[in-house]
Amino acid sequence: MFSVTVRESMMIAHSLRGEVFGPAQRLHGATYLVDATFRRPELDPDGIVVDIGRATEELRAIVGELSYRNLDDEPAFAGVNTTPEPLARVIADRLADRVAAGGLGEGAHGLTQLGVSLRESHIAWAAYDRDL
Amino acid sequence: MFSVTVRESMMIAHSLRGEVFGPAQRLHGATYLVDATFRRPELDPDGIVVDIGRATEELRAIVGELSYRNLDDEPAFAGVNTTPEPLARVIADRLADRVAAGGLGEGAHGLTQLGVSLRESHIAWAAYDRDL
Amino acid sequence: MFSVTVRESMMIAHSLRGEVFGPAQRLHGATYLVDATFRRPELDPDGIVVDIGRATEELRAIVGELSYRNLDDEPAFAGVNTTPEPLARVIADRLADRVAAGGLGEGAHGLTQLGVSLRESHIAWAAYDRDL
Amino acid sequence: MFSVTVRESMMIAHSLRGEVFGPAQRLHGATYLVDATFRRPELDPDGIVVDIGRATEELRAIVGELSYRNLDDEPAFAGVNTTPEPLARVIADRLADRVAAGGLGEGAHGLTQLGVSLRESHIAWAAYDRDL
Amino acid sequence: MFSVTVRESMMIAHSLRGEVFGPAQRLHGATYLVDATFRRPELDPDGIVVDIGRATEELRAIVGELSYRNLDDEPAFAGVNTTPEPLARVIADRLADRVAAGGLGEGAHGLTQLGVSLRESHIAWAAYDRDL
Amino acid sequence: MFSVTVRESMMIAHSLRGEVFGPAQRLHGATYLVDATFRRPELDPDGIVVDIGRATEELRAIVGELSYRNLDDEPAFAGVNTTPEPLARVIADRLADRVAAGGLGEGAHGLTQLGVSLRESHIAWAAYDRDL
Repeated sequence: MFSVTVRESMMIAHSLRGEVFGPAQRLHGATYLVDATFRRPELDPDGIVVDIGRATEELRAIVGELSYRNLDDEPAFAGVNTTPEPLARVIADRLADRVAAGGLGEGAHGLTQLGVSLRESHIAWAAYDRDL
Repeated sequence: MFSVTVRESMMIAHSLRGEVFGPAQRLHGATYLVDATFRRPELDPDGIVVDIGRATEELRAIVGELSYRNLDDEPAFAGVNTTPEPLARVIADRLADRVAAGGLGEGAHGLTQLGVSLRESHIAWAAYDRDL
Repeated sequence: MFSVTVRESMMIAHSLRGEVFGPAQRLHGATYLVDATFRRPELDPDGIVVDIGRATEELRAIVGELSYRNLDDEPAFAGVNTTPEPLARVIADRLADRVAAGGLGEGAHGLTQLGVSLRESHIAWAAYDRDL
Repeated sequence: MFSVTVRESMMIAHSLRGEVFGPAQRLHGATYLVDATFRRPELDPDGIVVDIGRATEELRAIVGELSYRNLDDEPAFAGVNTTPEPLARVIADRLADRVAAGGLGEGAHGLTQLGVSLRESHIAWAAYDRDL
Repeated sequence: MFSVTVRESMMIAHSLRGEVFGPAQRLHGATYLVDATFRRPELDPDGIVVDIGRATEELRAIVGELSYRNLDDEPAFAGVNTTPEPLARVIADRLADRVAAGGLGEGAHGLTQLGVSLRESHIAWAAYDRDL
Repeated sequence: MFSVTVRESMMIAHSLRGEVFGPAQRLHGATYLVDATFRRPELDPDGIVVDIGRATEELRAIVGELSYRNLDDEPAFAGVNTTPEPLARVIADRLADRVAAGGLGEGAHGLTQLGVSLRESHIAWAAYDRDL
């Protein structure tokens, strides 16, 4: 299995609902380092997993829709706790949509798995992996 | 599959038995950066993999039982070479016991996998992954 | 010159006023990795720059007063843009106050310089250095 | 499953053929941080995944055959785009050959998987995983 | 003293002349992580060291003029060994020119020092610091 | 001012005397990432700060004399608490001796400063800087 990973980051505000979150129930924020990993068993005709340039652009666009925002006010997350786990899934699903729509090039249709991790500090991170 | 990882560290002394270990047969020591990864296919009712606060506390408690010690003198490791591989397993197994005992909360019973890695330097690390 | 550095992190929300900040004028947030560096020309009687345990506790307490908060609502920052530069200075000044008050132990009175850096992502960080 | 990873690096020149590579079609170069991961379900009689010393030596030897070279001139890569994906496979396959030949010791015959990742910058990396 | 640092990277080919460089006398290459640090004793009227957005753009432009190239063919480096030390100076000097020309904004005229470091691997880096 | 830094690591056992050290009074250990930084205002005739190959070899030799040992038993540290601060000074002083003895080459006589830092974990490190 081959894989390629590209990194971006985003800076958001949010608050979390539920006693389990303790002080994170208050409005606060986070920088998330976002690593998107693309996987496939065989390389495409260019000898790559995915065009790193396009992958970076698409990831940047998706992350840009979330960045410099208060996620508590985003309709896409109404009623959802924006912990890094579901954020990783949203980013992975949007990347998967872009792959399906051809945004990462024809060769990207051979991708079979996609993973997104969000690092919120030097001591904690979350990830979501899915098939394509 | 979702995952969450938390990081702690520990500082221990030990020596290793066996020619394969070369100079590491002498009494020496290590700082291990300990990353514990919790995995599950679906999130719990709070929308998380595991309560990061509790996971960190439990990992800190388990690591604290090993830290600032000479592992050559620990009864738990009598007759065992305390290379990072079995140390990772011991920490993973103790975390699994804490999950089973409810120490990470009710939601944690939905965890399906657990992994622990130990970084011993900028150029070497080890890991152990198991099912729950 | 000797130095010791300890690391903590904090997660905050804020917005910045001024065209220069572009999209960061919107309410958003950040994780700041906070590194506090203590410097002195000679070691104290215990052979250290500063008690790492106490230094970590004091840094954690100061960072804890800012963490999980919307800095736009903090009276201490009324009328101040909470970019990482002034945040680094505030943390450094509060640490200096703690050193002067004896919070880091008697030996810490020999410290001559203090620096605080705030990493906001994998590609940007800020710092403030001052004399004691 | 247990694993052990060791890190080396190499510095190479190359150019890539194909419009998808944009400016990387020009002769340029890269430092690749090379992480080799060895996996097995049970430890060997010494209680390890693999002898870290030998694994490091073998990885250094394989990487050394590529380092400080222009890969465009290497017969082994004639007609191949030396993107990090196939480079990771070449290194993994050569390590697998060394394992089979006994170069990592008798215990290494119990290894079941091998992975190699190549980090080309702080924002992009590639990997290849295979069975043994 | 305040500082702000931004990071970019570049991928270049080159060879070095002189026995001291051993195998690096052959044509090879490197990824350099380029950190540019801007320093000043007091903040500008916006409460910042420098506009991070503009600083990143200018650094990217300067690094872009070197990236994806064989430095042996660049007239700017005719007769110069392109080790990381002089490369760091070239980048620092070009940034200083951009500061003087107003490319980083009016506030940037208050900058007093500039530093550039180039990381060539996980075990080696170089830097150059100068006054403005 | 120019600088070059090279990294090595060492694994040691030790115990610390004094109440301030709490649990670190017990025999334990550490991995220290050792970064040695060489500084000079002008480059040598080869256009470098120092021969990175030789610098790495000398640092490795000095670190090798300490590694895989119990520092409590080393005559060189009799009566000394082997916290990272004095260890950094010992390594820096030994490197300075090697520079003076010509071990880093003739060009190295132009070095004017030397710094050594020891990272003991992801959240704590120490350093010592001196003139040459």
